Amino acid sequence: MIFYREEIITRKGITMIDKVIGIDIGGTNLRGALVSKDGNILKRMKISSQADQGIDKLIDNLAGFIKELSEGEDIYHIGMGIPGIIDSKNGIITEAPNILNVDDFPLRAALNKKLGSDVNIVIENDANCAAVGEWWMGASKDVNSMIMITMGTGVGGGIVLDGKLWTGADGMAGEIGHMTIYPDGAKCNCGNYGCLESYASATAIRRMVHEGLQDKGLDTTLRERTKNVDEEDIPQIVMESASAGDGFSLGIWQEVGKALGIAIASLVNLLNIEMAVIGGGVSNAWDLFIDTTYEEAHRRAFRSPMKRAKIKRGLLGDDAGILGAAHLAFKG
Amino acid sequence: MIFYREEIITRKGITMIDKVIGIDIGGTNLRGALVSKDGNILKRMKISSQADQGIDKLIDNLAGFIKELSEGEDIYHIGMGIPGIIDSKNGIITEAPNILNVDDFPLRAALNKKLGSDVNIVIENDANCAAVGEWWMGASKDVNSMIMITMGTGVGGGIVLDGKLWTGADGMAGEIGHMTIYPDGAKCNCGNYGCLESYASATAIRRMVHEGLQDKGLDTTLRERTKNVDEEDIPQIVMESASAGDGFSLGIWQEVGKALGIAIASLVNLLNIEMAVIGGGVSNAWDLFIDTTYEEAHRRAFRSPMKRAKIKRGLLGDDAGILGAAHLAFKG
Repeated sequence: MIFYREEIITRKGITMIDKVIGIDIGGTNLRGALVSKDGNILKRMKISSQADQGIDKLIDNLAGFIKELSEGEDIYHIGMGIPGIIDSKNGIITEAPNILNVDDFPLRAALNKKLGSDVNIVIENDANCAAVGEWWMGASKDVNSMIMITMGTGVGGGIVLDGKLWTGADGMAGEIGHMTIYPDGAKCNCGNYGCLESYASATAIRRMVHEGLQDKGLDTTLRERTKNVDEEDIPQIVMESASAGDGFSLGIWQEVGKALGIAIASLVNLLNIEMAVIGGGVSNAWDLFIDTTYEEAHRRAFRSPMKRAKIKRGLLGDDAGILGAAHLAFKG
Repeated sequence: MIFYREEIITRKGITMIDKVIGIDIGGTNLRGALVSKDGNILKRMKISSQADQGIDKLIDNLAGFIKELSEGEDIYHIGMGIPGIIDSKNGIITEAPNILNVDDFPLRAALNKKLGSDVNIVIENDANCAAVGEWWMGASKDVNSMIMITMGTGVGGGIVLDGKLWTGADGMAGEIGHMTIYPDGAKCNCGNYGCLESYASATAIRRMVHEGLQDKGLDTTLRERTKNVDEEDIPQIVMESASAGDGFSLGIWQEVGKALGIAIASLVNLLNIEMAVIGGGVSNAWDLFIDTTYEEAHRRAFRSPMKRAKIKRGLLGDDAGILGAAHLAFKG
């Protein structure tokens, strides 16, 4: 059950807010959970987001999803992670090209209208939510300041300083994926050249494969392995072929690891954080790139802050975003 | 007059702390001022630091300097900026190779012992002080979050977020000069390759001049102008020759501007700050590099946060560090 604001105000004085809903809004799925104050997932759900069918359909689906998740519970706070530029303060999606073809959409207002409620909805960039999640319940549980790098289709980032998400003057901070690593490097989706994202994302791995295979003399098992496969599956295949010892594939993971190490070194010198957490689907190839990352970062950064900054793999997987959204909802 | 702790505690309840001392400790000079709560410099002094004669001499000089600055005043708080890695919390100079050949030196304790006082001494990295100074009383007076880049012999940096200096887990944050800009670039003093410092400092400019002049065919007025001059004077000469239209010299300032622009773009995407302030002696060549910086930053960063982040020249010059140290002293 979700409440109108008057009820929230009345009850707030007498009721402890001990459960919230955390949701990760993706292009394909809505994944969410009922989360307790101490970070336990009490109930979990996943449905198709159908975001490609437009904003009305997404709102419909979200509303139904929330109703089902909140069944039998008193819910006053909902947190949501969204892949895009989010105006958290006003509850507006500024831009989310990968899930929605609408700019400046007032998600909070639209959703409350649809729900017929006035529940407290917090929206935030999905990579920021993942950072908060790992900081709250995951790899960075015991530190005050950390960065999280999420390697997926793109490379997302989040920065937690002194236990607080740093979102910047307009909520746009944390774009670690769009630090310039190689000024004359590969073109990035954002228009810049040589961003971390153009060397350490699934998209980057596909680019490296296609570029490499143009050299007809290159001896690699990828030539056969990637024939007639879905583009989406290529990173997984490069992981398998590298594990089987294919030199070209191993080199791709070294490129990924090196770019990541360069970025981490700069971030450590800049922010003197206690931990860099790496997550996202591409990080499943951990053993294939992390040695290069570690070596590169330690070779470049100042010794003392680099010694302090542990490089760790995310512990929460897909739950990082849900738990981070939930934590932000608790803080309301 | 400076006070013992008991006196401070007794008086604190009844006396408003309305003046502090801010000091900038350099390899050559001690520069300091008596500063009022609203940021006015009431009295200003400068003496030789004689830091090259060892730590005892420096402490002697500092103590005399403080006594003279505080004459006729009730001083409870002193702030100091030092070029090096500073452990602010414990009042220790961790490392300051350019002024002192001592590691882990407890400056706060040694100075209070020498003064026979127990005054509240705050020490901080000098570039961090400059950032706080420009944020408090200079170019960034009206913003909440900013970075400052100080281009001198090296490149220093400071990060102010939500009106608070971000010093990191161990007080080592803000090393903007040691972000990697060109991974395969020139070797930096810190051991890394391609740091901002190795492209935008006085040292970098000297390197570019010497490297360029090795090409005997290069047509530049610098060949004559830099004969038998002091190494220290080279950046100034490159400024003059560029202003007079020398192509090679102009190219050097474009290199400086470009590296700076690449760094600012990454910082804007990362931190979504409201302003990037550029100061330090090398920034006197402002008109020779800033167009390139502006263009490069805008070409690379996300449009919206880059539009927000103004690039400004520092307003306070050498006073930035003194005022920043004073502000940190007020905050105690």
